[in-house]
Amino acid sequence: MKRILPLVGVAAVAGVAAVMMSESRPAAQEAAPAFVTQIPAGYRDWRWISSAHEEGSLHSIGAVLGNDVAINAYREGKLPFPDGAMIAALHYRHVPSAENNEVFGQAQSFVPGTPTNVQFMVKDSTKYAPTGGWGFGHFGTDGKPADVAFMKTCFPCHEKASATDLVFTRYAP
Amino acid sequence: MKRILPLVGVAAVAGVAAVMMSESRPAAQEAAPAFVTQIPAGYRDWRWISSAHEEGSLHSIGAVLGNDVAINAYREGKLPFPDGAMIAALHYRHVPSAENNEVFGQAQSFVPGTPTNVQFMVKDSTKYAPTGGWGFGHFGTDGKPADVAFMKTCFPCHEKASATDLVFTRYAP
Repeated sequence: MKRILPLVGVAAVAGVAAVMMSESRPAAQEAAPAFVTQIPAGYRDWRWISSAHEEGSLHSIGAVLGNDVAINAYREGKLPFPDGAMIAALHYRHVPSAENNEVFGQAQSFVPGTPTNVQFMVKDSTKYAPTGGWGFGHFGTDGKPADVAFMKTCFPCHEKASATDLVFTRYAP
Repeated sequence: MKRILPLVGVAAVAGVAAVMMSESRPAAQEAAPAFVTQIPAGYRDWRWISSAHEEGSLHSIGAVLGNDVAINAYREGKLPFPDGAMIAALHYRHVPSAENNEVFGQAQSFVPGTPTNVQFMVKDSTKYAPTGGWGFGHFGTDGKPADVAFMKTCFPCHEKASATDLVFTRYAP
């Protein structure tokens, strides 16, 4: 029996394979959805969409940045986002700033600490058709993508934001 | 006796007047430091330096953005910041995101709410010599600058960050 290639690799090579699969095929043979497996170049220079602070098990503070296509769509209120839109979420530990707190005279200031991961949403309504037209990506600080089991959790959650084309983050004016 | 013009107006017109004043003059006659009295054009398109979350009496979440001169200085670790560097701090109420929390199934997500103010630091070592080479600006959501009494509180606080050329915010990688 042939070795089954890692799903991410299959997805990256096969591209639109997932859309061509019939629903009647056994689950094991269905093509995996494509994920974003390479960090988009230049994302750190994209413009700022908003910031976010997550507690629960995350304790993170971060920024959400967008390329020109994404920023323009946000500003024009254009939904769904057009192909080519890319959104990055940069996450860091939410930590107190000792130096700021010393100046304020009390513990009140929190800033980004150690980077934890960078996540991406890349709009390509053909390539990523099985996941609402969005490719999802998650990269650790080593630059490596998360495994397929982890990546499969992105779409079911983002799908809940269907009113805003699967994007949770609002543009901060 | 002549009416004393608003200090911000004097500073904006006189520019470098403050540097020319002798220390022996009475305090009442000293020129006021110049402040940033106009919102720099295009600041919302500047690149992201970092995010910040302030509790205490502020309850704010925000982003710090920089123009090209500031971003390049940050990335190259260049201190002091060169003339032309401009840094913006965009502040919003730190509010829970009801829609995010519904997806997470618990109260853990905080995002920017109502905008509160935008602050600027503009480097011009001549014009703003009396305040460490930085001009400070603070604008409410109506676009109007804060009054002089408020603006005079900026420099004494930022002066405490002398090791980083009066700038508190670190660049988030």
